[in-house]
Amino acid sequence: MSTKTVLLTDAPAWETIQQAHQRIAPRIHRTPVLRSATLDVLTGAQLFFKCENLQKTGSFKIRGATNAIFSLSDAEAARGIVTHSSGNHAAAVSCAAAWRGVPAWIVMPKNAPVVKCKAVEAYGGRITFCEARVSARAEAAARIQAETGAVLIHPYDDDRIIAGQATAAKELLEDAGPLDAILSPVSGGGLLSGTALSAKHLQPDMQVYGCEPAQADDAYRSLQSGTLQSIDSSDTICDGLRASLAPRTFAILRELLNGVLLVSEEEIINAMVLIWERLKLITEPSSAIALAPLLRPGGAGSLFSPVRSPKIGIILSGGNVDLRSLPFR
Amino acid sequence: MSTKTVLLTDAPAWETIQQAHQRIAPRIHRTPVLRSATLDVLTGAQLFFKCENLQKTGSFKIRGATNAIFSLSDAEAARGIVTHSSGNHAAAVSCAAAWRGVPAWIVMPKNAPVVKCKAVEAYGGRITFCEARVSARAEAAARIQAETGAVLIHPYDDDRIIAGQATAAKELLEDAGPLDAILSPVSGGGLLSGTALSAKHLQPDMQVYGCEPAQADDAYRSLQSGTLQSIDSSDTICDGLRASLAPRTFAILRELLNGVLLVSEEEIINAMVLIWERLKLITEPSSAIALAPLLRPGGAGSLFSPVRSPKIGIILSGGNVDLRSLPFR
Repeated sequence: MSTKTVLLTDAPAWETIQQAHQRIAPRIHRTPVLRSATLDVLTGAQLFFKCENLQKTGSFKIRGATNAIFSLSDAEAARGIVTHSSGNHAAAVSCAAAWRGVPAWIVMPKNAPVVKCKAVEAYGGRITFCEARVSARAEAAARIQAETGAVLIHPYDDDRIIAGQATAAKELLEDAGPLDAILSPVSGGGLLSGTALSAKHLQPDMQVYGCEPAQADDAYRSLQSGTLQSIDSSDTICDGLRASLAPRTFAILRELLNGVLLVSEEEIINAMVLIWERLKLITEPSSAIALAPLLRPGGAGSLFSPVRSPKIGIILSGGNVDLRSLPFR
Repeated sequence: MSTKTVLLTDAPAWETIQQAHQRIAPRIHRTPVLRSATLDVLTGAQLFFKCENLQKTGSFKIRGATNAIFSLSDAEAARGIVTHSSGNHAAAVSCAAAWRGVPAWIVMPKNAPVVKCKAVEAYGGRITFCEARVSARAEAAARIQAETGAVLIHPYDDDRIIAGQATAAKELLEDAGPLDAILSPVSGGGLLSGTALSAKHLQPDMQVYGCEPAQADDAYRSLQSGTLQSIDSSDTICDGLRASLAPRTFAILRELLNGVLLVSEEEIINAMVLIWERLKLITEPSSAIALAPLLRPGGAGSLFSPVRSPKIGIILSGGNVDLRSLPFR
């Protein structure tokens, strides 16, 4: 993959994020921020969970998709939308396109969870399956774009998407007050770069970390090496975290991120069970990963040693799980 | 069981419910009211879910337990608390007693879910197991009371408990605005009678229904016959709905309730899966039951025929489920 140079000054400005929020607020849920005394004790922190699993379409992805699709002119929108996604962005684009009254063509890898495919169909999206390789997705989307003239809305390498996803952290900070740190999953980096933009604007001293499966560690390697790395396939349980950073998200994260924390599959499942048992929230593995690093020996103290009982925001990104194939029991 | 005469004028007054709310508000969560566009379509209604599964200790029971225990004088509280419960009231009393710094003795049926027993122990409650018969619980509690001098806090035949549980519907109406109806599970009737007191005070024309497993239909039979009926054992999947009405709750429900809706085990499981899949909320079967009647052919229209797309509040009472023995898959 080539590394185009993108300057941070090209990233969505705060005004752009505010406009995105105004555009999408009437259409999405303002999701609650929940707490758990038990998880606070277990991690030695004060945790604030931003519940995007309770968001429309079951994930934060509706924020970026709604912002992008309602940013289009009527003439652009009328051509329809095409995108590729492992699932949650696919459902979000299908839903937001239906709200706008235009068709949506969706490329999904053939190993996408059935529950996510069904959601796309329920919102009226038209699915084309492709090979599970990340590169196959973009190729299939480009073919459909050429055939239909539809507008491509990339799942994360798109400022309208990044600005939309940034509104989750904006709401979290508005509702929870100042935090010492935010932890968010990272895959293509749309949510994480949006989170970093909002967090560092509202509170420049805040630490922002991405959490990534050790089995799909391209973001970690990209930031370590300073060169955009890709990963073409992974069998991590986190079906939403199998994509790689893109030029736009890489540029923002290089500048703003404090680090990427790698998490094992076992740690992800343990965190997922704890969130289900204690917060009573259905969260997907790709979402539960953001709690996992705080459950290690030493808890939050091992990450944020100078701060006693730090205030940590955790973005629970989505809740689309196939209840009939759970990774525990 | 003898039917003592209790007049509705003996029931907790609105001022008592307000005082209960002031007493417990600093200690409990103000749980969110969530919506689902998909479930609205499926039921032909506008649904407002009051998420007591997200409450401290995982159920509404902490409301009544906190109100009762913090109503005691220091001298009374110092003697400790004794109660009997299939699980959620047990955890709530253990937790509220720990907050007050006094011991809690808990009688639980030996078939109570392991996850609920563990919760009691985690809060410091001291468990005595008894036979699964409802009558065995009160006998064991009376023995402990005689031995220890502890104060008995009955799980529902107690005005302090009823007033505490009434605060859930009070919050729901404050947050959702006027409703056409509220549906709530019914077991001993603490939650349902509290719900009816708040609902009918705030909006006298509102309909209030209890939802009860057909396999544990004592409340239905009591209200039909006008005489308090009991059920001594049931194997309904709703482990929280195996108790029978008591004189106080029966008197209130006779006066205020619009009806009891009986629900099959299959309907309960279907409703539970829908809530998990669509609302992304872990709810126990005893809680999911309150959605089930609206999923029948005709949806809400079959119950509330004159109203188009009625506004219906549903009290999701708790989320304490053993994730390793789910009733689906």
